[in-house]
Amino acid sequence: MIFQYQNTAREGDLVELTAMRRGFYIIRLQEDGELQTHRGVIKHADLIGKEWGSEVFSHLEKPFYLYPVTLSSMLLNTKRNTQILYPKDIGYILITLGIGPGCRVIEAGTGSGGLTQALAFYVGDSGHVYSYENRQEMQNLARKNIALLQLQERVDFKLHDIINGFDETDVDALFLDVPNPHDYVKQVKSALRPGGSFGSILPTVNQVSLLLNALRRNGFSFIDVCEILLRFYKPEEDRLRPTDRMVAHTGYLIFARSIQKAPKEKAEGDSQDDEA
Amino acid sequence: MIFQYQNTAREGDLVELTAMRRGFYIIRLQEDGELQTHRGVIKHADLIGKEWGSEVFSHLEKPFYLYPVTLSSMLLNTKRNTQILYPKDIGYILITLGIGPGCRVIEAGTGSGGLTQALAFYVGDSGHVYSYENRQEMQNLARKNIALLQLQERVDFKLHDIINGFDETDVDALFLDVPNPHDYVKQVKSALRPGGSFGSILPTVNQVSLLLNALRRNGFSFIDVCEILLRFYKPEEDRLRPTDRMVAHTGYLIFARSIQKAPKEKAEGDSQDDEA
Amino acid sequence: MIFQYQNTAREGDLVELTAMRRGFYIIRLQEDGELQTHRGVIKHADLIGKEWGSEVFSHLEKPFYLYPVTLSSMLLNTKRNTQILYPKDIGYILITLGIGPGCRVIEAGTGSGGLTQALAFYVGDSGHVYSYENRQEMQNLARKNIALLQLQERVDFKLHDIINGFDETDVDALFLDVPNPHDYVKQVKSALRPGGSFGSILPTVNQVSLLLNALRRNGFSFIDVCEILLRFYKPEEDRLRPTDRMVAHTGYLIFARSIQKAPKEKAEGDSQDDEA
Amino acid sequence: MIFQYQNTAREGDLVELTAMRRGFYIIRLQEDGELQTHRGVIKHADLIGKEWGSEVFSHLEKPFYLYPVTLSSMLLNTKRNTQILYPKDIGYILITLGIGPGCRVIEAGTGSGGLTQALAFYVGDSGHVYSYENRQEMQNLARKNIALLQLQERVDFKLHDIINGFDETDVDALFLDVPNPHDYVKQVKSALRPGGSFGSILPTVNQVSLLLNALRRNGFSFIDVCEILLRFYKPEEDRLRPTDRMVAHTGYLIFARSIQKAPKEKAEGDSQDDEA
Repeated sequence: MIFQYQNTAREGDLVELTAMRRGFYIIRLQEDGELQTHRGVIKHADLIGKEWGSEVFSHLEKPFYLYPVTLSSMLLNTKRNTQILYPKDIGYILITLGIGPGCRVIEAGTGSGGLTQALAFYVGDSGHVYSYENRQEMQNLARKNIALLQLQERVDFKLHDIINGFDETDVDALFLDVPNPHDYVKQVKSALRPGGSFGSILPTVNQVSLLLNALRRNGFSFIDVCEILLRFYKPEEDRLRPTDRMVAHTGYLIFARSIQKAPKEKAEGDSQDDEA
Repeated sequence: MIFQYQNTAREGDLVELTAMRRGFYIIRLQEDGELQTHRGVIKHADLIGKEWGSEVFSHLEKPFYLYPVTLSSMLLNTKRNTQILYPKDIGYILITLGIGPGCRVIEAGTGSGGLTQALAFYVGDSGHVYSYENRQEMQNLARKNIALLQLQERVDFKLHDIINGFDETDVDALFLDVPNPHDYVKQVKSALRPGGSFGSILPTVNQVSLLLNALRRNGFSFIDVCEILLRFYKPEEDRLRPTDRMVAHTGYLIFARSIQKAPKEKAEGDSQDDEA
Repeated sequence: MIFQYQNTAREGDLVELTAMRRGFYIIRLQEDGELQTHRGVIKHADLIGKEWGSEVFSHLEKPFYLYPVTLSSMLLNTKRNTQILYPKDIGYILITLGIGPGCRVIEAGTGSGGLTQALAFYVGDSGHVYSYENRQEMQNLARKNIALLQLQERVDFKLHDIINGFDETDVDALFLDVPNPHDYVKQVKSALRPGGSFGSILPTVNQVSLLLNALRRNGFSFIDVCEILLRFYKPEEDRLRPTDRMVAHTGYLIFARSIQKAPKEKAEGDSQDDEA
Repeated sequence: MIFQYQNTAREGDLVELTAMRRGFYIIRLQEDGELQTHRGVIKHADLIGKEWGSEVFSHLEKPFYLYPVTLSSMLLNTKRNTQILYPKDIGYILITLGIGPGCRVIEAGTGSGGLTQALAFYVGDSGHVYSYENRQEMQNLARKNIALLQLQERVDFKLHDIINGFDETDVDALFLDVPNPHDYVKQVKSALRPGGSFGSILPTVNQVSLLLNALRRNGFSFIDVCEILLRFYKPEEDRLRPTDRMVAHTGYLIFARSIQKAPKEKAEGDSQDDEA
């Protein structure tokens, strides 16, 4: 749970109203509020005081279910002008970069702030997120999305071109969601703590090749390139089968770790047999 | 980062020594310690004081790299007698169940404690994990693994058969990693807070069918069944291609949310058109 | 090529007119024919005499390309009331069942005749296809589709319920595309030659389980269950990447071979260690 | 069936002896022959006269099953020094290129002749295969493999460097299984009939990019790039699940069709909106 909720919905709660087939609405409860949907109108007053998970009805007698907002819903709902980062990718990024409570993390670009929300949630009160973007309107949008979660104190939004480098040093992890990460690998190296973790996501193989080249030339190793396919099933016990269609591609994930090579004369002979 | 590390390795640090091709060792640094590997011996004293990411050499002049331990390495390294939960699945489970700092979470069974480690890391200081198991020797193993991460204060290990129910109520999320989760759905419902999230992982489609049936009959909805495929690439910019082989199956993931149906007379007519 | 074509299009040829983005039309050329499309009208007379692969233009100056009809196009174009068998599955079925020139093959049900077309094409002049169906209107549709390819002499269409068995014996291969193949395994066994090959396609795991059980109890072995995923890429050399979405499921393919078990007393001890 | 077999095995038949778990042997039956396996010895004389699909026993009482040889077994068994083309890819190549009875087809390079066997089988008596290779020892191996199937009359083996072009013109389809197909696209265009079909398979994305570029610059269109993933299941009705591991990559398949662009002045304006 992102917020501290009671067992029943209260005024001011950010809630999720879910219809049966995956459509949902995120609203903040207000005594006199109303939600208009194509399945009818629901008054906030009818929700306040209800237990979470309750079935409620619109004025057209269509059922909805009332839940505390979840991070997944926030990610899928976030208003955006940009490509989305999917939960399947975000979960794996967090685990692989080791991002959790207490971490200091940089991301660029901010975009609409989907990953920013996830990072801010997972670094907890003791961690911090530095989020770079060079388009004012995207940053404004991301600020609004973070404010919805009341996590603005965990994030510094910066309006920089990262070609000039990052303000921070010794961060635990750094993630680039920009079209040309290969242009910023030196800057990444300077911002990471020794041994720190780097990640990126890229749509095309051509971009991946460019980044691999830049990583090798700038003191990174333990490079992984992977992609994650998520396949849903129709959840019917007597007719269990995958859905007809699925997302085939969101992006290639690239991970690497900063290394400190020992002086050449010692390493040389050995690294060859290692590379073989 | 799981622990607070300095910029250089110190005695007492839990570290990761990584050879080029994915093999790695996890050790706790001791002034007079020695690591024996098939690529030669490394003295801990040669590591203490080194920067993270440093290249170091065994007595056979083979290179290794020195890193703070990561959650991923811990998960992959955990000594186990049981099926492993993979990082690809754990990341998605965390995001989907909304498990993060401050959450109260139940898992069963504990097994060798792989998921327990991830949960304990992500719930942070303000959250808590309740981990059930009915085999003493597995619980002992899991306790040891959690102690390695110094996260034992975030976990209550319990030696119960969960057929008798869980001690806790109103937990935010509950995950079952047992062969017969369909036998415990009522108990799950009682332990979850209203609207709480449930997850499970199962190897066969037959088990999935049984669980789907039990979930529907016990007040759960918003059921998702999915599987995650992770495909790695050979990270060479001039010859970029997927690896020859991959893991084809770890398990089907099942997620559901507890619901509170409104009294029948009202819902009936409508739910039919919704199910259509 | 299905038919004998000359190097230029002639009256009477079955041709394919293809717009750039995968849409295409299959027509038989007639001196005074016209093709109406949403991108303009094309007169058959403007096509007759053109080289294959030629670019031609509608009266709205929109380009089309002229090709001999291909089996793939026929399969994708076939008018149908039923689930389609995809080229990715058909190709693998042919290879796995060993169906080629000279083979005698049974299929049931005929459906709209997609697989029938492929079978009739691949068994050549010296092979034969027996196609069973119990719905008259489906058989009529399939007959029309086969006639388009002028392959009607290679196919016997039968209007039977296969619960009463097949008329043929000693066929090389038999494919069932029906919802309940587990009800017909004895009949299949009787129709196949000794050692003959059986295949089926099924949408749900529950159906697969039923079929596996029936195959084991009726003298089949070497059972394979598999699924084929086909992922397309956007064919742009500078921005090469998979398409955004893909077909996630057409069906599970099941293959088996008829076996003749030796008398029990001899086999028993051994088969156990083999099954282990 | 590749050959005409009787209902029982006869001397001279090419047969397949299959143990339970996918291992198999391909032998030609000879009155006094013996097959040595790690599961015991089998005398050919004990096989001659047996029905296909029969269970037979080695001198160690281990069971085997007797089958006519199949194309799939031949493909998987072919002695080779080179990368194999898998049945999953071959089936889709045949269907997509429309290769069947009566077709004239070129392939290069021959390699160990796996695809050659499939092509020779599917073009039937009325079709023909032209197979180019520039390594004598590979051609010798392929000749032997084709002779095993007694299909040598359907294949012309050629020892050429295809940089000098192909001897044939107006072939229906042409497949390149070489590392640098982009170097031969002009030659391919000259050998294909107007509107003919081209295919290739390549392991790396970098090679695919080069080929896409060459195809566009040399009069090809309707380009498809795809990959086929084949996932097997453990065929147990009560514990149905995918196998633990699978082949992650064999190669990217590229298909294209030869086109004849109309003179520029007419096409120009329109093709832009088409490409958009």
